Parts: sequence; structure tokens; C-alpha cells
Amino acid sequence: MNNYHAFNEQEAVEYARSLKGLFSPKAVLESNEIGDGNLNLIFRIWDRSQPKDSVIFKQALPYARVVGESMPLTIDRARIEREMLLLHNQLAPGLVPQVYGYQDELALTVMEDLSDYLILRKGLVQRKLYPHFAEHIGRFLGKTLFFTSDYFLSSGEKKQRVVQFTNPELCKITEDLVFTDPYFDAQTNNYNPLLKEKVAQLWKNRTLRTEVQKLKDTFMTRTQSLLHGDLHTGSIMVTDSQTRVIDPEFAFYGPMGFDIGAVIGNLLLNFAAQEGHCSSLEERKAYQTYLLGLMKQVWDEFQDEFSRLWREYNDETFYYPYVRSYLQEVLQDAIGFAGCKMIRRVVGLAHVEDLECIQDPQVRFHSEKLALAIGIKFVLHRKEINDILEAALLVRRVRTEEVKSNEVN
Amino acid sequence: MNNYHAFNEQEAVEYARSLKGLFSPKAVLESNEIGDGNLNLIFRIWDRSQPKDSVIFKQALPYARVVGESMPLTIDRARIEREMLLLHNQLAPGLVPQVYGYQDELALTVMEDLSDYLILRKGLVQRKLYPHFAEHIGRFLGKTLFFTSDYFLSSGEKKQRVVQFTNPELCKITEDLVFTDPYFDAQTNNYNPLLKEKVAQLWKNRTLRTEVQKLKDTFMTRTQSLLHGDLHTGSIMVTDSQTRVIDPEFAFYGPMGFDIGAVIGNLLLNFAAQEGHCSSLEERKAYQTYLLGLMKQVWDEFQDEFSRLWREYNDETFYYPYVRSYLQEVLQDAIGFAGCKMIRRVVGLAHVEDLECIQDPQVRFHSEKLALAIGIKFVLHRKEINDILEAALLVRRVRTEEVKSNEVN
Repeated sequence: MNNYHAFNEQEAVEYARSLKGLFSPKAVLESNEIGDGNLNLIFRIWDRSQPKDSVIFKQALPYARVVGESMPLTIDRARIEREMLLLHNQLAPGLVPQVYGYQDELALTVMEDLSDYLILRKGLVQRKLYPHFAEHIGRFLGKTLFFTSDYFLSSGEKKQRVVQFTNPELCKITEDLVFTDPYFDAQTNNYNPLLKEKVAQLWKNRTLRTEVQKLKDTFMTRTQSLLHGDLHTGSIMVTDSQTRVIDPEFAFYGPMGFDIGAVIGNLLLNFAAQEGHCSSLEERKAYQTYLLGLMKQVWDEFQDEFSRLWREYNDETFYYPYVRSYLQEVLQDAIGFAGCKMIRRVVGLAHVEDLECIQDPQVRFHSEKLALAIGIKFVLHRKEINDILEAALLVRRVRTEEVKSNEVN
Repeated sequence: MNNYHAFNEQEAVEYARSLKGLFSPKAVLESNEIGDGNLNLIFRIWDRSQPKDSVIFKQALPYARVVGESMPLTIDRARIEREMLLLHNQLAPGLVPQVYGYQDELALTVMEDLSDYLILRKGLVQRKLYPHFAEHIGRFLGKTLFFTSDYFLSSGEKKQRVVQFTNPELCKITEDLVFTDPYFDAQTNNYNPLLKEKVAQLWKNRTLRTEVQKLKDTFMTRTQSLLHGDLHTGSIMVTDSQTRVIDPEFAFYGPMGFDIGAVIGNLLLNFAAQEGHCSSLEERKAYQTYLLGLMKQVWDEFQDEFSRLWREYNDETFYYPYVRSYLQEVLQDAIGFAGCKMIRRVVGLAHVEDLECIQDPQVRFHSEKLALAIGIKFVLHRKEINDILEAALLVRRVRTEEVKSNEVN
């Protein structure tokens, strides 16, 4: 930590100039701090004469930016993020930003500028269609989760990786905000006052709380694969034809279903939000159908890729036919984690733009209630789900019930 | 490794003399290498004028003694064993040997001499009764498994411990010998030729192999608690009133059920052996009933201790009512692992004295067949077992079926 200091825009430019080969010697560099996240500084640095010639500096702060210096946070997460990015570049090239360099003492990673890309969450809020996204993310999940599991790595290499990606502070954030705080009257919680009664019911639901603890236990004790760890639609950047997964600073060895569930849960948060901010019935229906299709396709692509790789690399060490029941458990975990992610975005500390951009609290309430209802059903009924289509049907059914109950009241 | 060398008896004496306070300055020391294990040197060192004044030197060899220098093995396991012993002394004082000192470069631990104790396995072969053993081991399991889990440690401390006790080489031995090799025609396997047909059936049993892979996956990816890792009846020493758990060099973070299952599986290997070497029907019946009672009592003591501690240390972090379904899963894991342990001791590389001391291969065959049948049923039906009594009933039922099938043939 001795040589660490947080850059300002001018220092970022000077440092960029000192890195040989990053820009042409004649470049006139400019810099902008564009971070809107919770934990880091993000500098965009470009050549004024060739604005396409640009890079990103990501620098970890030794505290959580969203809270301030009172919440210190290790900058070792920058090392973890950079090592994960480099590994993702090997395992799923073209689906993550390229890394041009790094400096661990400064907690700094220099990487590809994705200014032409849009955060997927924002794209979904705008009801855009992404014909390649599901295929790309499904493949990303299949490759990164398979190649970091015991089904590819030797038993010793895998255990070494578990040590390398031990990430206690960032895991603790997830443990608290996703699995603990939303289930009792914690100070961190933050919900629409109209939901008060629904939230009180949630806290009293013994079966739900038991099932959530089971999922928390799985999150904390299941070293299946090296996860991205925070794979919501804000960690995915897209163009019409390209997809990039960013921000793997939460990386750690955990249950595969947690990454897959993050994608599914966030698609469904958008599904719930459509109740509130669609301009026409047709539009809502079409986009919700589109989102359920994406969910199915993400799972199918993951499953195909993962099974294909398992077959390709299989030997006597693991018994091949086990892949079927294995993937069934991964699906059930994914549904459960998706549920937890939906509940926490309604009840807990950090919310999502999909819902927050609905101005009218009464309209937003209907979307939030739907998100909560889907989340709860997913947690409670995940063990009955043996096919992704059943999950889609369950979402439809919950929606119908919710709409009916709104009409009655 | 630079200063490492393996002691002979004379060097062990000289080293003991150099450790201040270990013996009186006037002591006339003698030494005997008494190791009969597979991996280490064990020196007993005592004062000739006061033979009760004695200690044990345990020194890891940089290879597996049972195979020779061609199978190198890290001496880091001596560090792991010693750190585990020290921790066990804190968590379950009086149930493990005391540690008097250690020297990591020599892979040496100096500890309490348990010459007055008998290895439990030998005691069971002699059909001795141990009125305190089940209570002691149940308590040992409850304390060591609870106090090293996420239900006691903070999330960060627990993750640090996972790193500290990363033990790839010794885990690999278990992965291969317990979960992989017995399920195909591996070179390491070693079984009574009379079992040939039974073993061929085992290899063709798809459901069984799938379930074993599931248990192997749990062994490799479930960091529930810091396990002893090799808790068979050869790792437990007893007197009429005392119990000591020794040899935790396989320690690692794994599923609780693996330690509990090791105890259960080894009690039942003795149960199966009784078919062969009991002198009278009455004696067999009585001792088998005794063993099933021990199995039940070990589980009950564990369950009581674990639940009591969970209640005592519980806060908002975990939802208390979850303990019931949690322990149900631990029981089902334990039954499954017990089954794997039984199968491997019949089919795989390393056998147990309980069965091996039956001279007549035909007589031993009946015991081995029973052990195999119980093991298979345990693996296949573990998810239907919700109470330890049901496991005992299943054992009884399998025995009856086996005896019948022997009479028919």
C-alpha cells in the first residue's frame, strides 16, 4: 500500500504517457473520470487528435466510494479483478475487455475502452433487442464455469485457484446484502413504503427464510467454479453484435448457479419493470416474451456448451452420465439465486434502474410486488424445476396471479 | 526442505535431549521407531529410569512410506497435522494428544505418548466394549465441526482457514482411492477373487456410479467445516475411560458428513466382519447390536452438541430454524460417505484389519459381500434416510437379505 495514491485526471494522463507503447509519442492526451459505480475510479484517456485511440484506467479506492472512507475495502480486489480478466480473456476471448497492463501497487488496470458499448441494463430499459447477447453470455458461462471447475482442472490446480481467488471482503458484501439483511429489519434495507406489508410478510415466512439460508450456505461453502460473482445486467456491455462482461472484482470460487442466476434474476427484474413503464399492452407483452426467451436461451446455450466440454474432456476421473443430474442441480441453484437477487433489489440496499426509473411510486409498487412474488416463488419452488421452460411457465403464472390480485383490490 | 533429514532412532534421542524441559537433565533416553502407518516415522522416546516419562516424535517422510521414494509427498502435511492438532486441543481438549513442540523444517511434531491406549479398530476386532467412546467422539465431532464452520467463525476467518488448510496431495489420495478407483478396473484395486462377479456388477451399476460421483463432487467442493479427513477407527485410540483422536494429516475444509461417515462406515465394517469371526451366534448378535448402538449414539451426541452450539452462538447472520434441515442433509451425506468408505475397503487398495484378520477367504467373502451390500445401499438410499434409526434398520434388512441369499446358494 506504500506507493498507493488515488489518481486525479491529470495524474492519470501523466501516468498514461509514461507507459511506453500505450499511445503514440505524439498523442495529446485527455482524461475524464467517468466512474458511476460504487467502489472505484474509472478514467477514460484518449488522444485528442484521434479520439478513437482510447483506453480505460480502472483504479480501486481503499474504501467503498458509495459510503466513503468510513468503509475501508482492500485494494487486493484490483489484483483479483485483473487476474480474473486475464483468465477470462484466455477462456472466453472476445467476450471480455482486453487488458493492456496493470500496476498492483496503484491497484490499477489498463484496459480496452468500451465507449461504443451500452450497459445491457440500460439497453433493456430502452427495450432494445440484442440478437446475440443470449448466445454470447450462455457461451461465456459455459466456458468460464467449466474450465475453472474440477471437471477440467486437476484437483491440485483447482485448489490452488481457490486460494488465489479468496475474496473475503467482497463475498461478505454479497452475504450481507443478498442473503441476510433483506430477511429481517436491517438498517441497510430500503424499500418503497407501499411494500411495507409485503415486506413484513417476507420476514415472517419461516419456510422462505430457511430456504434462503440454504442458498446462503451454498454460496459460502460450494467451491464449484470460479465465478464472476456479480454478473447482473450492469456488468454486461453490448452493441448490436458484441457482448463484453466487465467488472469481475467479486470473483471467487462458488456455486455455478450464482452467476447464471444473476443473469436470469436481472432479466426478470426487467420483466417485472415492464408492468410499469410500457407505453402499450402490445409492447409490454412482446418485450416480456422476449425476456423469457432470452432467459431460456441463456440457459440452453450454457447447458449445451458445458455438456459439450464435459464430454470432450471427460476421463475416468469423473463418470460422464453424472452430467445430467449435475446440470439439474445447477439449474435449481440458478433459479434459487435468481430469486434471492430479485428480492434483494426490491427490499435491500441497492436497487436497479429497471425499477427505479418508474417515477410514480404506485406504478412502481406493482412492478416491485411482481418482482418480489417471482423471487419468492423461485426460492420456494426451485427444487421442483427440472427444465428452464418450467421456470418460464412459473413466471407467467405468478404474473397472472399478481394481475388478478391487483384487479380484486 | 534444506535442513530436513529423516531421523534414525539415535538421532531422535539426541534431538530429544536438545529440547530443554522435555525430559529431566538426568534422564537416560531410549528410542524405538514404532511406525506401522503408511506415511511417517513414529519414534517413542522414554527415560529408562522412569519408563512412564515418554513422548512421541512424529516425523513426516518426503514420500509415501508404503510405496517408497517413487511416490513423493510434501512434508507440508506435517505443518497441517500439527496446526490441526493444536486447534483440536483448543476446541476439544482431552480428546486429542497434547502437543509439546514442533520443528517445521524437520516436519517433526513432539506429542503425548499414548502407549497405554489401544487403537479402537483393534479393540473392536477383540470385541471389547467402550462405554464412553460414542459420547466422546460425538462430542468431538460436534465441537470440531461446529467451531470451524461458518456458523461460528466470521466469514473472513473461515475463508482464511480454508487457505491455511489447503491440502491438495492428501485430498488427492482420498479422491482416487475412495471415490474413483474402486468404480472401474483400476490397477490399484485389490479384492478377494471370490468377489469378482460382485465387483463386475458394481462397475456396471450406472445409478451407483452417478451417486458416487455426486458424493465425490461434494467431497471436492463443499467447504463446510475443517475435517479430520481420515477419521476411521485406526485414527482413534481408546482406554476404558479415555478417547483420543490422532493423525489429522488429511485435514482440509470439506463436508461434515465425511468425518461422521468415516466413523459410521468403519463401525459397520466391523459389523460385517462379525459374520466371519464370531465364535458363537449369541456373541455375533450381541456385538452387532452393540455396534449399531454405537453408530446411533455417535450421531445423536454429534447432533445434540452441534444443535446446542448453534443455538448458543446464533445471531441474525443465520436463521436458527434452518438447523433441522441442515442436520438432515449432514446425516444423508454421512450415510453416503460411510457407504463409499465401506465399498473402498473391500474393493480398493487399502483394506482393514477387521476383515483381513479372517483367514479363510470363503468366510471372509461372506463378510466382504455384506460390507459391500451395506455400502451400496447406503450410497443409493441415503436421501431417504431422515433418522439414524432408519440407517440401523437398513443395515439389519441388508444383513437379513444377504444371509437368505447365502442360504439359497
